[in-house]
Amino acid sequence: MSFGEIDQLCINTIRILAVDMTFQANSGHPGAPMGLAPVAHVLFNKFMKFNPKNPKWANRDRFVLSNGHACALQYILLHLYGYDMTMEDLKNFRQVNSKTPGHPENHISGIEVTTGPLGQGFSNAVGLALAQTHTSATFNKDQFDVINNYTYVFTGDGCLMEGVASEAASLAGHLKLGNLICIYDDNHISIDGDTNCAFTEDVDKRFEAYGWQTFVVEKGDTDLESISAAIEKARKVRDKPSIIRLRTTIGFGSKIAGTGKVHGSPLSKEDAMHVKSIFGFDSEKSFQVPDIVYEFYRKTATKGAKVEKEWNILFSEYENKYSSEAAQLKRRLTGKLPEGWEKSLPTYSPEDKAIASRTLSQTIIEKLAHVIPEFICGSADLTGSNLTRWKDAVDFQHPSTGLGDYSGRYVRYGVREHAMAGLMNGMAAYGTIIPAGGTFLNFISYAAGSVRLSALSHHQVIYIATHDSIGLGEDGPTHQPIETMAHFRALPNMMVWRPADGNETSAAYYIALTERGKPTIMALSRQNLPQLSGSTIGKAIKGGYTLLETHEKADITLISTGSEVGICVDAVKILKMQGIKARVVSLPCWEVFDTQSKDYKLSVLPDDIPILSVEVYSTLGWEKYSHEQFGINTFGASGPYKDVYKKYDFIPEGIAKRAAQTVEFWKDVKPIRSPLNRAFEQLI
Amino acid sequence: MSFGEIDQLCINTIRILAVDMTFQANSGHPGAPMGLAPVAHVLFNKFMKFNPKNPKWANRDRFVLSNGHACALQYILLHLYGYDMTMEDLKNFRQVNSKTPGHPENHISGIEVTTGPLGQGFSNAVGLALAQTHTSATFNKDQFDVINNYTYVFTGDGCLMEGVASEAASLAGHLKLGNLICIYDDNHISIDGDTNCAFTEDVDKRFEAYGWQTFVVEKGDTDLESISAAIEKARKVRDKPSIIRLRTTIGFGSKIAGTGKVHGSPLSKEDAMHVKSIFGFDSEKSFQVPDIVYEFYRKTATKGAKVEKEWNILFSEYENKYSSEAAQLKRRLTGKLPEGWEKSLPTYSPEDKAIASRTLSQTIIEKLAHVIPEFICGSADLTGSNLTRWKDAVDFQHPSTGLGDYSGRYVRYGVREHAMAGLMNGMAAYGTIIPAGGTFLNFISYAAGSVRLSALSHHQVIYIATHDSIGLGEDGPTHQPIETMAHFRALPNMMVWRPADGNETSAAYYIALTERGKPTIMALSRQNLPQLSGSTIGKAIKGGYTLLETHEKADITLISTGSEVGICVDAVKILKMQGIKARVVSLPCWEVFDTQSKDYKLSVLPDDIPILSVEVYSTLGWEKYSHEQFGINTFGASGPYKDVYKKYDFIPEGIAKRAAQTVEFWKDVKPIRSPLNRAFEQLI
Ligand SMILES: [Ca+2]
Ligand SMILES: [Ca+2]
Repeated sequence: MSFGEIDQLCINTIRILAVDMTFQANSGHPGAPMGLAPVAHVLFNKFMKFNPKNPKWANRDRFVLSNGHACALQYILLHLYGYDMTMEDLKNFRQVNSKTPGHPENHISGIEVTTGPLGQGFSNAVGLALAQTHTSATFNKDQFDVINNYTYVFTGDGCLMEGVASEAASLAGHLKLGNLICIYDDNHISIDGDTNCAFTEDVDKRFEAYGWQTFVVEKGDTDLESISAAIEKARKVRDKPSIIRLRTTIGFGSKIAGTGKVHGSPLSKEDAMHVKSIFGFDSEKSFQVPDIVYEFYRKTATKGAKVEKEWNILFSEYENKYSSEAAQLKRRLTGKLPEGWEKSLPTYSPEDKAIASRTLSQTIIEKLAHVIPEFICGSADLTGSNLTRWKDAVDFQHPSTGLGDYSGRYVRYGVREHAMAGLMNGMAAYGTIIPAGGTFLNFISYAAGSVRLSALSHHQVIYIATHDSIGLGEDGPTHQPIETMAHFRALPNMMVWRPADGNETSAAYYIALTERGKPTIMALSRQNLPQLSGSTIGKAIKGGYTLLETHEKADITLISTGSEVGICVDAVKILKMQGIKARVVSLPCWEVFDTQSKDYKLSVLPDDIPILSVEVYSTLGWEKYSHEQFGINTFGASGPYKDVYKKYDFIPEGIAKRAAQTVEFWKDVKPIRSPLNRAFEQLI
Repeated sequence: MSFGEIDQLCINTIRILAVDMTFQANSGHPGAPMGLAPVAHVLFNKFMKFNPKNPKWANRDRFVLSNGHACALQYILLHLYGYDMTMEDLKNFRQVNSKTPGHPENHISGIEVTTGPLGQGFSNAVGLALAQTHTSATFNKDQFDVINNYTYVFTGDGCLMEGVASEAASLAGHLKLGNLICIYDDNHISIDGDTNCAFTEDVDKRFEAYGWQTFVVEKGDTDLESISAAIEKARKVRDKPSIIRLRTTIGFGSKIAGTGKVHGSPLSKEDAMHVKSIFGFDSEKSFQVPDIVYEFYRKTATKGAKVEKEWNILFSEYENKYSSEAAQLKRRLTGKLPEGWEKSLPTYSPEDKAIASRTLSQTIIEKLAHVIPEFICGSADLTGSNLTRWKDAVDFQHPSTGLGDYSGRYVRYGVREHAMAGLMNGMAAYGTIIPAGGTFLNFISYAAGSVRLSALSHHQVIYIATHDSIGLGEDGPTHQPIETMAHFRALPNMMVWRPADGNETSAAYYIALTERGKPTIMALSRQNLPQLSGSTIGKAIKGGYTLLETHEKADITLISTGSEVGICVDAVKILKMQGIKARVVSLPCWEVFDTQSKDYKLSVLPDDIPILSVEVYSTLGWEKYSHEQFGINTFGASGPYKDVYKKYDFIPEGIAKRAAQTVEFWKDVKPIRSPLNRAFEQLI
């Protein structure tokens, strides 16, 4: 297939639509869509395998716009190919409640992952490619390449400067992900102007160092043949990811083409008219799409539908021959867990010995690995500390390494927390995997950019965050989280769990696995925790519950999480000797507790009893559930963990002292209202 | 100088001390110190310029242990050279309140920067090198190289896998920082075992791609001559940073040398004895330092003192000849600001027009740049959005670029938020610079790892965080912070400012510049904000103050920050028509307000009046200052900012409605206690 006038017309149509959308919105980024229109046209028309009428087709090629500010381009393509994206939607670009927000969001049909925060899409793409590689290695059979899609990612200079993309690129090279093709919009412009001012490294050489195949297209604005040839060649490289560096002109066609001015603001009216006229469009009209352009794109869409139909036939044959594999793949794609998986979650009684919650988690992982095949685990180079690997796990590695194979389900992310999170978002988005990855809780913060997108995008990703407090001891304040829980509890849609014992750890995994639209951070202790009397999985899955009730009306409620719950139980004994009746509430997950009925919540945190929260972190936010707060609003200390707990008075005596102060302080307030009672509903 | 038996004895002494320290602590990392002892010995003894008796000497060479877990090595060196580090301190390794915590902390004499979180030290080193380069370009004169120190950084595989180090390395290459020498401990081991499992890139090639000079020493365990020669050569490369890849054996001397087992746990008793015996020490004794080893190191220390003395003479001559430069340098080193600088802070009255706080910040920066020469600003590729550059600013660039020079005070960080923060920590640590850098508030989260260390290390770093809320409008939820303020407000020692108008923005800069031991995040609006009646710099520097007081006792206090304060003032008018008397408190900085006297704070948030907080973020934490909270506990939306504010009801009517509900809800509680009244003091 060679290119003709119609291709040029299509490309220019994309360009002027991008000009119109940003002009109408009086906001947005026309430059990148104008520069990327040619490669987008060639890629989608000639190479991409997709069916706009079934955007969730399992074996579709995945497309990621890592430079998400260029989203006008993506919306235009969705419209032209006949996805659920109308011309009206394009006209509503960047308006409240539109289908065309300022950056692509994955709830929009045809958009795989939410992008915009730079570097994220790139690492998502590596995750999508990893997921494809694993899924094909798991399910494909001789003559049945049921899963063989490519992942294409567009990236600009910005993404490639971001550390998260560097981490992901190094890992993708190590893993030899041959189905991953990156198209780098080398336009020499970033927001600060010419990339000469900050970005002068040799990108090709860097990617070669990572183990990528590199290609260059010098005339990316016009040379469709070379663009096509480069993609063709990249597709043939099967044992390395590829990057095609495409020299383009940002804002091609505009009077300010090739300058930073065309990056982030609409063109002037005059320039917009100019662009239309040089591309042969009516300079007075807006949102023009020639009929033959629609026809041309719809033809590709029809071809895509046909390709899916052929795949469906292939899959039927596969189903006949490999029924259990097919059933499993279908099950995984629908998001259903295997029947009865939850029976493998261990339960504990107070007689069982004290165990660190990271070890409790390990026991669960050991079992899950054998009953949930879509559970893919890993660690950012802390396997032996996070305890994330099961005994007979196979590493996800290129077979040539001798260290594993592509059907392996344990990922060695290296010391790359941010990329781990970015990859896991992509893996979750692929649709056949539930990814979990470990690091220390304190270093989840390194991944904050991606963790935020897990929550915003409703990706089911499990962060196994061990060494969750000053209780890690000797590593000291550089490794001891203080602000971390407040950070992630404030993140909407994120479930932050901090289980206090074995039953609560099982409950945390139960919810993490069954809530398909929410990510989880699992804060786990390094130190041993006793198995508590009063904890059950059934109670803990409510996010918060009464662990220890008093017979008569209590004088105080102690509310706590994780390793401090057991210390609170000990404090109750001291208080009893002082004549103070204390009840204990365990609140392992705020997000989940908040979704319970008001009646239930008030039964846990009733009126007329002052509440003291106890947790070895910043107290910030605990006022939501308590009248007084015992926490650490400063940094931790290096030392054996018991000494560190003592230093901060997190011992039964320290808690009892503050509980008594709380009772005293609140005795003259009437009524003492549970903090759950509020004057008005929150926006959630 | 060639090497002899004494050198070997010194090196082995370091190794067995590291074995003893970790053994005694029953915790820590013996492997890396044992592997790095030779290069540490050669570097400190032959090349490093330092005086243990004056660890703050301005022109000392800077040493950074980016693989901070190897800190036993650094503590041992400090001890042997006669810094304030006794044998007793070594024996107290990793104990509470010791001078030898689990990772190096910069309050310890002789330690430049706090390290441990991987990749941080590396980027700090780039910042130290940048600071040196700038300081020398600013102060050195013909024949007066008063500032010519090198920065040396040790790094392991872990640091080099981290994105923050990749970003910093790319930038260091771009900036051609010839005074920076990195020694890479290429020991093929990380926590997960052989680096083959996750880190197989060609590191040399990658650093060449960044523009670094690379060197390799194959026998890093034994070949002191080659180590020395490589450092020698690296010192001569003046227009590029250098990296020396040193092949070493982790845990050299141990029975488990070269394996992951020697990385993060003490040796067994037997192995510890084995190491001592093969190195010719008494295997039964611990903490042995032969006298000749002490003598040898103290000789180097004496030489260092002499070098400083010579420099003092040079500096005296410099002072005679260039008195104003010398006075400025001395002033900067003491941390004093120029006399009267604060007069340049603008003040505003309500008649002045509405201005976005990012623009108010720009006005201040424009002035500060001319009165505070140590103020070095920059942006992570958002200069035109953050408004961080002043009109006649010169970029910090290698002169060959034609884009600036090394005396330039505006840094183009590229899209590298994390490295920007890591560099700024190093720049602040150098001692002659107050660094400020811009990005969107939402992307400060990308830099969370370094921001945390700004706070922990008491670095005076100013984060200029514009586009601070849903008020950024069209860019949408991927760019709109929700959890960010809770995150950083929970971070101890961090001043998070969110000024509401011009006077508050001036106050924020006043405190950010005068508080020398605290970093600042300055959350600034994209949208225009009115100049408020009742705001003054004098009030705002208290962190919180009564903006609008009622004549009679108020029915409610509205407390708010930034862009919502003005909306609260409008809500008061609506409430007045409903017969509700409302007062307004502006709380631009919690951290600073918290340090005021209790009396003052209670005058701002008095008892007996219910308090409603109003802020377009997660409500988490606001319970600390209010009885009811109006916020956004979900993600934002893309659209023109006024539409977005309306969508979430952040309009005067929406606030008034909730204020009325608050008054109603609290009317039956007696007493209504100001939330500032607590049952006990917090740990801070
Ligand atoms: Ca670009
Ligand atoms: Ca290593």
